Amino acid sequence: MRVFIENRPGVWYRLPMILERDKTLWEVMLGKREADLLIEDGRFLNPVSQEMIRGSLAVCHGRIAGWGKVPAKRIMHAGGAVVTPGLIDAHIHVESSMLTPREFARAVIPHGTTAVVADPHEVANVAGIEGVRWMIDQGNLSPLRFFWAAPSCVPASSLDTPGFVLDVPEVEKLLDQEEVVSLGEVMNYPGVIFGEPSVVGKITAAVTRGKVVDGHAPGLTGRELFAYVAAGVETDHECTTLEEAEEKLRSGMFIQMRQGSSAHNLEALHPLMQGPWIDRLLLATDDKNPMDLSEKGHLDEPLRMCVQRGIPPEKALRAATLNPARVYRLRGLGMLAPGNWADLVFFEDLKEFRVNRVLIGGEVVYEQGKLYEPGETDPVMPTPSMRVKAFSPDSLRIRREGDTMKVIGILPGQLLTEKLVVPVPGGDEVSADPEQDILKVAVFERHHETGNVGVGFVRGFGFKQGALATTVAHDSHHLIVVGTRDEDMLMAVKTAIDIQGGAVVVRDGAVLATMPLPVYGLMSDQPLQKAAETFRDVHGAAKSLGSLLMDPLMQLSFLALPVIPSLKITDQGLVDVDKFQHVSLFGE
Amino acid sequence: MRVFIENRPGVWYRLPMILERDKTLWEVMLGKREADLLIEDGRFLNPVSQEMIRGSLAVCHGRIAGWGKVPAKRIMHAGGAVVTPGLIDAHIHVESSMLTPREFARAVIPHGTTAVVADPHEVANVAGIEGVRWMIDQGNLSPLRFFWAAPSCVPASSLDTPGFVLDVPEVEKLLDQEEVVSLGEVMNYPGVIFGEPSVVGKITAAVTRGKVVDGHAPGLTGRELFAYVAAGVETDHECTTLEEAEEKLRSGMFIQMRQGSSAHNLEALHPLMQGPWIDRLLLATDDKNPMDLSEKGHLDEPLRMCVQRGIPPEKALRAATLNPARVYRLRGLGMLAPGNWADLVFFEDLKEFRVNRVLIGGEVVYEQGKLYEPGETDPVMPTPSMRVKAFSPDSLRIRREGDTMKVIGILPGQLLTEKLVVPVPGGDEVSADPEQDILKVAVFERHHETGNVGVGFVRGFGFKQGALATTVAHDSHHLIVVGTRDEDMLMAVKTAIDIQGGAVVVRDGAVLATMPLPVYGLMSDQPLQKAAETFRDVHGAAKSLGSLLMDPLMQLSFLALPVIPSLKITDQGLVDVDKFQHVSLFGE
Repeated sequence: MRVFIENRPGVWYRLPMILERDKTLWEVMLGKREADLLIEDGRFLNPVSQEMIRGSLAVCHGRIAGWGKVPAKRIMHAGGAVVTPGLIDAHIHVESSMLTPREFARAVIPHGTTAVVADPHEVANVAGIEGVRWMIDQGNLSPLRFFWAAPSCVPASSLDTPGFVLDVPEVEKLLDQEEVVSLGEVMNYPGVIFGEPSVVGKITAAVTRGKVVDGHAPGLTGRELFAYVAAGVETDHECTTLEEAEEKLRSGMFIQMRQGSSAHNLEALHPLMQGPWIDRLLLATDDKNPMDLSEKGHLDEPLRMCVQRGIPPEKALRAATLNPARVYRLRGLGMLAPGNWADLVFFEDLKEFRVNRVLIGGEVVYEQGKLYEPGETDPVMPTPSMRVKAFSPDSLRIRREGDTMKVIGILPGQLLTEKLVVPVPGGDEVSADPEQDILKVAVFERHHETGNVGVGFVRGFGFKQGALATTVAHDSHHLIVVGTRDEDMLMAVKTAIDIQGGAVVVRDGAVLATMPLPVYGLMSDQPLQKAAETFRDVHGAAKSLGSLLMDPLMQLSFLALPVIPSLKITDQGLVDVDKFQHVSLFGE
Repeated sequence: MRVFIENRPGVWYRLPMILERDKTLWEVMLGKREADLLIEDGRFLNPVSQEMIRGSLAVCHGRIAGWGKVPAKRIMHAGGAVVTPGLIDAHIHVESSMLTPREFARAVIPHGTTAVVADPHEVANVAGIEGVRWMIDQGNLSPLRFFWAAPSCVPASSLDTPGFVLDVPEVEKLLDQEEVVSLGEVMNYPGVIFGEPSVVGKITAAVTRGKVVDGHAPGLTGRELFAYVAAGVETDHECTTLEEAEEKLRSGMFIQMRQGSSAHNLEALHPLMQGPWIDRLLLATDDKNPMDLSEKGHLDEPLRMCVQRGIPPEKALRAATLNPARVYRLRGLGMLAPGNWADLVFFEDLKEFRVNRVLIGGEVVYEQGKLYEPGETDPVMPTPSMRVKAFSPDSLRIRREGDTMKVIGILPGQLLTEKLVVPVPGGDEVSADPEQDILKVAVFERHHETGNVGVGFVRGFGFKQGALATTVAHDSHHLIVVGTRDEDMLMAVKTAIDIQGGAVVVRDGAVLATMPLPVYGLMSDQPLQKAAETFRDVHGAAKSLGSLLMDPLMQLSFLALPVIPSLKITDQGLVDVDKFQHVSLFGE
């Protein structure tokens, strides 16, 4: 909860109470002194009373100083725009934008976002508590208000080589930070339900600090849901049907209605907003890739969708202002109330939700297509994170050890995979067989130079030639590569290492496209438009290999996550997720 | 947040998280073990979904273990009763009931109350932090869940001799206690608005601990309200009109709709419940005297009133269950949700709100007119608190020092008084003049044996003879007496001292009635019916003196409170409240 004041670079103003230090605001409120700013001609939408109030709003020292015409140093004409509290994304992984927190902020502010609750789960897997601190520090350089969740499930499993482990003491350390407002999505729901000490310890750490416990429980229902909720988990962003969301609401959960790049749940869930639980619904994106951020916007997208579907705009806006602020106890945000931070969005209308101005802490940070970042200072990039042990072409070689082998079967558009068993193609050395859409897939450990390489086969990519590699590989984010020939795969891997992480497409010994992600191998060091461009390049190049998939990069990124069924691959080899154990490539 | 379990005296079970220590509950939830209790045939009213759900509810170790028929050690038939979460009074001074916390609990449980947020403001004035701790300890002996506010305004002013002073360090000590969930009503609103350091320090102490800041701002509006809210004050229970409440709601406050013994605001405020701020309204009583508790009940009274006035019962119930639990962060209360404490009320209907059973922490504490208190232990009474210096009849004598004098003018039914100026009656010694309804009034300091006695005159009681004394005299609670003759007044004072505090009526040298309040001079050591009886006795006797007032005792109790205009009296003499200073009796 910081806000920049008075245009002094690097000066941030963070306080739970203003009165103690700042009597000026009081004098302005009581009419004894000029306000810094008076916003006139606004239609102010009060999310508590759900009313549109025409009038003037005074601002002093970044805070709302009250209603009514008062003398002010500066007058701002709203020109009839609808002014609401700044939008708050209740759950997002900034890493999904492939932008640093700073650049992410620049990307979302023009869409009316002034605060986010971000779970730095990906960085935590790659760089541990230091990585999370880097994210927090970067966030604090931006006018956007970044609040953070302490990632609860790092690593996701014991079936690969983790970059880092966050156990109870590390999570406690993060929860002790002012910027951290919740325990990040507790995905390990069996751990909750069966009372695994490390999971319970993390929940207890959040509860005793008065912080929120975020959930992640797709499809959890009935008795298991009882146990999950009773443990103290308060939110869920995984609902895909009305029925599921209603059951969770009845059980006392707050529901984050998700509309992001991977999951599009708002179509199913928007009728909730007409229900009696209007104070318990939040908007969230969970993840938003740079292309979508650039083309579809941020929370303005779900707001538009709601209104198109007949939800009154004041109800939809509650879920992006008042409600998230209250659930995450973001004191001073989410309302147009005296003493609240003057984080304000000026919408041209409540249908398209076109934004023409954004204020954070009373400072204009966006106006008519231009971004302003008072107090800009240089970001400090983290140390490069690619630590891959030297390897030879042999790393990818597989000798036949049977007549049948297991192949990961992609299900287009899903994170689930099938376990296929096929006759082993070729001779003594087993190679990819693009004719039958059987490609080789490999995971190179990239954090500790262990030299681990897991190799297997996958069906569903449909590449006729070439290879695709990426260092975004949930959750441990090793280097994963898929391809039709070892040479192209090795070239893609080497290139990915050379560019300090990122995604690479190779064909016939030539690099077709790269998306450098030098920040932990997860994020670009470039602004949105550049990142979106390289993202599109890599996507286009990957498709040009003959891909049958809508989003081959995303599908590849989840092949190494051994907590989603059924067959996955890690740096330690194939994993049968249903049995939760490593399995050999050959045999059934 | 304690609950008695397993009928073991003195064993309280307090925890933020159950999972860590109690896997039994989990096993019950998952259907692997018998529940302790299954409630069948209930109509369960879920305050989140506002639905009535017919079915069964399982309880284990005091907690709700889920819905549906499961094997259980004990079956309870609800017989079609409406089962809701226990009622929560969001703001009450237990001292107003003139009962100890323990006896107060016995009085309110039969009306469906299972938790209260109590502000021990009166005890704090008399006995400081030790007195507050005594209240907390007593509350913890009861099955009722007592949560407490740290009194913020002790003493109320510097115009009398305080019993105790609670400055920032004392308030911080109280706020550090788990049972303390808020800073008590910040009545000193000029102190807030003008940033008085001790007031601001107390607010900061609450905010930084994540606790609520309760307000008290009758009629505060416009700019002054901006400043009050901006300082961090979150609730208000002083609204008397819809307009006032709506302004405060718009400004972000939570509104406690008050229906108690002194203030009856529900008639004016109930339409709020049909508004968009349904999540921001709470029911509260503020004060409830023993007669009202015995005759009108507790929160069942405002619930009945709401429904009679057309408010859907599920909306009214929200304000006494889900909403207060959420505002005061009473984790595990206010919902019918898995893991919540099984604090349940069985209503025969949702019109009269007749209660036939109450459970707290899964234990039956009230059933068909009978109270059950598992684990009862003996209360320890505090040390007697009457410390009045020996005095002579001269204490009340007043020599004429002018031709006119100031007289406190009672406004029937109001806490405000008028400043009257009348010709001095009688000769050299000024006496009461019952013919003209001018009675003598005196305040005897009773905490530190200072020997202070303030003497003045009052019009409005209408006594033709006799005297009325009480040790309930807001806020410092010295011994106040009003009467027609010094002899009766002195006898009333002596009797009040002899009975270790309380109220006394004397006529013609004979004691007509006493209400002993040996607990700090504020509370009876008797149960409700006995306390209500002596309360009625004293009321009847006071009226028999010829009183014109509906409630002479209550009017007397507020004559020594020098923060409500216009003319008041303290142990240090007359106070002109508008000027906020002592004034002489004689002259204009």
